[in-house]
Amino acid sequence: MAQIENGGVCFPKGFTAAGVKAGIKASGNLDLALLYSKEPARCFAVFTKNQVQAAPVLYDKEVLSGKNIINAIVINSGNANACTGDQGYADAANMAELAEKELGLGKCSVLVGSTGVIGHLLPMEKIRAAIPGLVKNLSAENSELFAKSICTTDTTIKTGSVSLQTSMGEVRFGGSCKGSGMIHPDMATMLAYITTDLRLPEDFLTEFKSLVNESFNAITVDGDMSTNDTCILLANGQSGIFLNDLGLSEQADVRSALFDLMKHLALQIVLDGEGATKKVEIEVCGARSKAEAMQVAKSIATSNLVKCAFFGEDPNWGRIVSSAGASGVVFHANKLSLHFEDVPVVKGGVPVGALPATPLAEIVKKKEYKISLDLGLGHSKVSVFTSDLSYDYVKINAEYTT
Amino acid sequence: MAQIENGGVCFPKGFTAAGVKAGIKASGNLDLALLYSKEPARCFAVFTKNQVQAAPVLYDKEVLSGKNIINAIVINSGNANACTGDQGYADAANMAELAEKELGLGKCSVLVGSTGVIGHLLPMEKIRAAIPGLVKNLSAENSELFAKSICTTDTTIKTGSVSLQTSMGEVRFGGSCKGSGMIHPDMATMLAYITTDLRLPEDFLTEFKSLVNESFNAITVDGDMSTNDTCILLANGQSGIFLNDLGLSEQADVRSALFDLMKHLALQIVLDGEGATKKVEIEVCGARSKAEAMQVAKSIATSNLVKCAFFGEDPNWGRIVSSAGASGVVFHANKLSLHFEDVPVVKGGVPVGALPATPLAEIVKKKEYKISLDLGLGHSKVSVFTSDLSYDYVKINAEYTT
Repeated sequence: MAQIENGGVCFPKGFTAAGVKAGIKASGNLDLALLYSKEPARCFAVFTKNQVQAAPVLYDKEVLSGKNIINAIVINSGNANACTGDQGYADAANMAELAEKELGLGKCSVLVGSTGVIGHLLPMEKIRAAIPGLVKNLSAENSELFAKSICTTDTTIKTGSVSLQTSMGEVRFGGSCKGSGMIHPDMATMLAYITTDLRLPEDFLTEFKSLVNESFNAITVDGDMSTNDTCILLANGQSGIFLNDLGLSEQADVRSALFDLMKHLALQIVLDGEGATKKVEIEVCGARSKAEAMQVAKSIATSNLVKCAFFGEDPNWGRIVSSAGASGVVFHANKLSLHFEDVPVVKGGVPVGALPATPLAEIVKKKEYKISLDLGLGHSKVSVFTSDLSYDYVKINAEYTT
Repeated sequence: MAQIENGGVCFPKGFTAAGVKAGIKASGNLDLALLYSKEPARCFAVFTKNQVQAAPVLYDKEVLSGKNIINAIVINSGNANACTGDQGYADAANMAELAEKELGLGKCSVLVGSTGVIGHLLPMEKIRAAIPGLVKNLSAENSELFAKSICTTDTTIKTGSVSLQTSMGEVRFGGSCKGSGMIHPDMATMLAYITTDLRLPEDFLTEFKSLVNESFNAITVDGDMSTNDTCILLANGQSGIFLNDLGLSEQADVRSALFDLMKHLALQIVLDGEGATKKVEIEVCGARSKAEAMQVAKSIATSNLVKCAFFGEDPNWGRIVSSAGASGVVFHANKLSLHFEDVPVVKGGVPVGALPATPLAEIVKKKEYKISLDLGLGHSKVSVFTSDLSYDYVKINAEYTT
């Protein structure tokens, strides 16, 4: 299996990035980012399913409905450009146009992204003033600067890269994401950008969506789905290698490297969940279908009572079983088995008899551990990754705009 | 409209109650309660929809599948008798039988209820030892003692009563409930007992269910549905008045008095939500149907980000709109209107222009207020009541069993 490294969006050939302080954030931190490929790149995108979609999401979808070849993405943090009506949409289009002009590109060559507070118009004068400097700042050394510039309440930047040697040469993937608030299974990453120098076929979107489902959509911090969630993969073909020209086994290796990178990025979001002190894998197995397994896993992973117990290092397995029962999936309580790591806790729906408390107490003290619930119904299995619910989660979110 | 008073389960004629310390709770607090009607009472019951149902729920459903006339309910707090398998079921049946014997009643005359920690067998010796004293303790003065004895993490007892004068004489309703953790719209009250001296027809269950939907099922504290949730109405007919003998307008008055009492009890649970400092009414109007309005209202009412904002007294309306969008109900963002009390905040999907911050800031500082979201799609409307998410919620739930 290919090794995940710390490179970012500029790791694959032909990508440069930039990040500047445009003055959008009151804090004065980095807040405008640019990702650029001189060679046009094929773009695969997954957006939030929220009925209230931010202007940049609406704009990007409009652009991608026409063609899926672009050169750049310009992203601001500190303002979500959501619930901003026609003016917000015009601003998103204008932000793209300003970047297109400065980069010497044609119409519909640049996508946009925004993250931050909802309901405020973008400070377009500041963005207009910052774009020339942003474009000048482009460099293949700026993966980290880019990663920093898209952050909001994130406490760490989130990057990753992977390369693999194929019979036709080296293929590279890089990526960066941000998110720690409003993270939900239904589009977990507020913003995620993945780059590759591989050439990908147009129909790769279906596959990309399923990779997103098992990575970014399999994590949850607080059950809220944002108005801006976006996950984009740019493939500029600069490695000279076309996926479909590789042998089937090499194609599988490439897919699995991409998936590993996406999961690596997604898990960084869990660990940076607002106020999170734990990362817990909730595995649900023995389900009739993956969909039902996912429904049960997400019910457990989003239960506040379960997440408070994780925070309190309390092996309160009753809450896990109860959340599973509240998921809407039909099962028989007397067929349930539950493990914390490899310690059996429930068998046949009742507590395992002579359970020494010590191993359980030690497991829940760990920063990362796994809980496995067997429904005893079938052979389907999924894993969802969740964080705990801490005082700091409440603190961060109670004081966000005030 | 009839006035809600502070009476409890013994307020209607013919009901007595009791509460003792059986030693089930480690704290030594009151933990065993009894509600009794010498005259057999018709019983209407709604139970949790959780797939994992506690032994007392399974037992009561079994009894009620045979007949719906009972004399008493014995309830313990401190132990949920859930996830306890066949032994748990036998214990629930045994608890009922012990009470039946002591009360001189036949089989299937007593229901049981349990609330507390999951996964531990009931301390049957303690319960057996306490039942005689419990029965001796029965008195019409014990509404409050009963209310205390069914509490767990509740910080206040929750009681209420209402009487109304009909052309045939006085009719009384009384009630008591407990719950502050694991409270969820789908069966909000962990345990709720309502009594009346009215005689009710057998088919009143349908109506009772719909009253439960608009009262106990319209409140939410943390989105979790317990394994034990139970709401029971006992009608012993001791007023000598049969509902169906009243005129239609009087029947309507009786129903509305019962509903007012149920809502009064349910709202006490919201205010006693674990760590709650606010009670917020989420009204969703302009929906295509009540079901869709409820789906949107519950999505908002269970959003951690929204609830943290309530706690932080932050008028962060963007989170409300975003949660509505994540509810799964299809609507048009540009038709949304949002009010905090009577202050318009969003109109046509965008913030209301020259909004002075002051009134909003004052509204969110109040202990109780109302938010109204108009979807602009139709004429259906519902209200859901929710609490905020505070440091204390996390504290209470992180330290529950440790």
